[in-house]
Amino acid sequence: MTLFNQAPTIGEIRAALAAGDATPAQYVSDAYEAARHSQATLHAFCYLPDTPPDTFVDATAPLAGVPVAVKDVIDTADMPTEFNSAAYKGRRPERDAWVVARLRAAGATVIGKTVTTEFAWRHPGPTVNPWNGAFTPGGSSSGSAAAVAAGIVPLALGTQTQGSVIRPAAYCGIVGFKPTYGTIARTGVLPLAWSLDHVGLFARRVADVAYVLKLVAGVDVADPHASHVAAVAHSAGKRRIGVLSKQAGGAIEPAQQAALDVLAAQLARDGAEIVAVDLPEEVFATPAYALQLMAVEAAITHGELVERTPELVSPAMRGLVDEGRKLPATTYARIKAAQMPMAQRFHAWLTQTMTLDALLVAPATGEPPRGLDYTGDASFCAPWTFLGVPAVTVPMRFGPSGLPLGAQLVGAAQNGAGLLALAEWVEARTGWEDAVTQRRA
Amino acid sequence: MTLFNQAPTIGEIRAALAAGDATPAQYVSDAYEAARHSQATLHAFCYLPDTPPDTFVDATAPLAGVPVAVKDVIDTADMPTEFNSAAYKGRRPERDAWVVARLRAAGATVIGKTVTTEFAWRHPGPTVNPWNGAFTPGGSSSGSAAAVAAGIVPLALGTQTQGSVIRPAAYCGIVGFKPTYGTIARTGVLPLAWSLDHVGLFARRVADVAYVLKLVAGVDVADPHASHVAAVAHSAGKRRIGVLSKQAGGAIEPAQQAALDVLAAQLARDGAEIVAVDLPEEVFATPAYALQLMAVEAAITHGELVERTPELVSPAMRGLVDEGRKLPATTYARIKAAQMPMAQRFHAWLTQTMTLDALLVAPATGEPPRGLDYTGDASFCAPWTFLGVPAVTVPMRFGPSGLPLGAQLVGAAQNGAGLLALAEWVEARTGWEDAVTQRRA
Repeated sequence: MTLFNQAPTIGEIRAALAAGDATPAQYVSDAYEAARHSQATLHAFCYLPDTPPDTFVDATAPLAGVPVAVKDVIDTADMPTEFNSAAYKGRRPERDAWVVARLRAAGATVIGKTVTTEFAWRHPGPTVNPWNGAFTPGGSSSGSAAAVAAGIVPLALGTQTQGSVIRPAAYCGIVGFKPTYGTIARTGVLPLAWSLDHVGLFARRVADVAYVLKLVAGVDVADPHASHVAAVAHSAGKRRIGVLSKQAGGAIEPAQQAALDVLAAQLARDGAEIVAVDLPEEVFATPAYALQLMAVEAAITHGELVERTPELVSPAMRGLVDEGRKLPATTYARIKAAQMPMAQRFHAWLTQTMTLDALLVAPATGEPPRGLDYTGDASFCAPWTFLGVPAVTVPMRFGPSGLPLGAQLVGAAQNGAGLLALAEWVEARTGWEDAVTQRRA
Repeated sequence: MTLFNQAPTIGEIRAALAAGDATPAQYVSDAYEAARHSQATLHAFCYLPDTPPDTFVDATAPLAGVPVAVKDVIDTADMPTEFNSAAYKGRRPERDAWVVARLRAAGATVIGKTVTTEFAWRHPGPTVNPWNGAFTPGGSSSGSAAAVAAGIVPLALGTQTQGSVIRPAAYCGIVGFKPTYGTIARTGVLPLAWSLDHVGLFARRVADVAYVLKLVAGVDVADPHASHVAAVAHSAGKRRIGVLSKQAGGAIEPAQQAALDVLAAQLARDGAEIVAVDLPEEVFATPAYALQLMAVEAAITHGELVERTPELVSPAMRGLVDEGRKLPATTYARIKAAQMPMAQRFHAWLTQTMTLDALLVAPATGEPPRGLDYTGDASFCAPWTFLGVPAVTVPMRFGPSGLPLGAQLVGAAQNGAGLLALAEWVEARTGWEDAVTQRRA
């Protein structure tokens, strides 16, 4: 099994439409057919309509002709949204989530809903890794990452509460982006943990993500969460990038480390200033903090369901709710109160003490785990989720098992656009496109 | 026992200094002497220096000649700050609290530290009510309220986590003001519960509070808490005031109700639009929520001390910490997550649904309780603390026991100045000054 299709990027679609070489409906219909065709092996979609969805016809709309796949924790008024939960079979939201409405208003067409792990926590869905069906695509945004990696759609929506965008993007060899906390309103998105939940984007190219971010960034009164860092006191530009002596999530595989080293060396040759840094000690505590916050908040969101119909909930989810219920208030309150000051200290450390434009870190331990049961370790993403700073995965190369290895770039709060500009520069230096061409040959 | 002194208001001090009729040092020295003299009976101060403090000499500074009393949970670099706790005897902060520094920078002179209940919770200090020594002055800002009411100082600093400014102001017959949550930075102020703590002001006249608020309002990076309501979509002006069929805190004494009714009738005669309103049902739940948030956060702030040296902590405080430790995280997280949306709904209800400039509500059940053990019920203030909206006490008249009855005006978030403008108009119509003159005669 391998890639099925090679959907054009958003940039390519826009160029073709501007030149009059294509119609929006054609792209949507191609993507829909590719999605249907992929289902027998990839299982990226949990819902596809029976016929291709109607397409917005104004070819000058910003996302005209752009087919989008939407993670099934994000509400769509015209398609079911079931959270990969037995308890929500047949659930049909009354309205689009805020971010879906924004995409549609910009001319995009939702072609289907993608597989999520149950409630965006651990219990996996049927999606496989597009590069090798014996491996996980990662989670929880499994189907969205796989659908973009398989070339079915140029754009997909995901969510990240620990590492659910950055990690599957790395495992699938695509670009995944999680903006600053609060940047994309979450109205109509199933909460897992409101202190940590982010809406994220998947695409094959960084430029596509940057383009879409401008269209969907925005706050909604119904989702009043704003960033932990109010002040923007940072401008990127000189490409000063920190590399870590010790990853926030723990030990990584030699191939992951080697790939990061090779990339850093290349960036240095091309003019970036590469600086070895030690993360502030307290950052190493954040993965545990993020898990505790999440357990408590998930226990509130899903506790009643677990109580009422435990047989409809996976052991993984039941375990999370149990854990959250056991925690004392003081533990939660301490972490919750520490979150904002830690984000502010990290901001000061990154932008003032170290004057870095970004950190170049591992998005995961390395290649995806074999099998579908375990979607991988989120500890390499959780710190940046907890601190609410923007992060982006850029694919680098194939590892020893022939599965992708990604790089994660982490930037300053409120500067997602600056981080993406840097990521686009990095992307041009990874050799990933060549590796893909070679792999296909 | 009765009032000792009659310190000029800030407005009077400024007028006299402008006319060259007095010197700043004179006012400070008078206040200091009055404070010393009052100690034998009033016990408002827990610390007074041996000699009058040096006075800032620029008579044109905004608070030149203004002697200030500071609640002993607020740090002062030149005086001890002991929280009325046996565990902190002799504690001497290294620097002034942010708000103290602001006052000093404006030319004010701190003449001493005032009695607080232990850690600003319930265990009372020795301060008595200036109108009758057999009654409580209220708490936790007992000494600050008493010092202003006794005419020792024209201005005092307090804090409010439940009802610690509004209630003692009512019991002592003075103006007490709690601004919008986050308006006055709390750096250097002992936390009781960071989700609820406010710095507040005491004065004899509303105009003095409004004047000082402009000088001390401000955020500090070290205290990043901002209001729960981001948008300011409200302008006062037409004096549309809501009165309640049912107080948020429960039943009140007939004399308190009668005083509110008489005031409302007077305001209506003078052109205010008085509207009977029912509070949104969820507001009645806020006093219980505020207590639970406080218990958990107090357990974090003071838990270690209670564990280490329980014999140095009052049973009241030990009980609070115990209660906070017993609460599950889900209870706290649920309340904490509800706080901001509730504040936003209250804002919409007040300003859009009811189009009110303020609510006129009871600040307490009525006159202060007899004795010093119990500082009174904070449930009539806790809703506005929990919702983070500005509130001000205006004294009305003496009750059946000859103790003051106050009115509480509650306004829209971020519009403390507007609320104070309305309160100044109300203040001129209470008949309080006449009642005081009569009482003295």
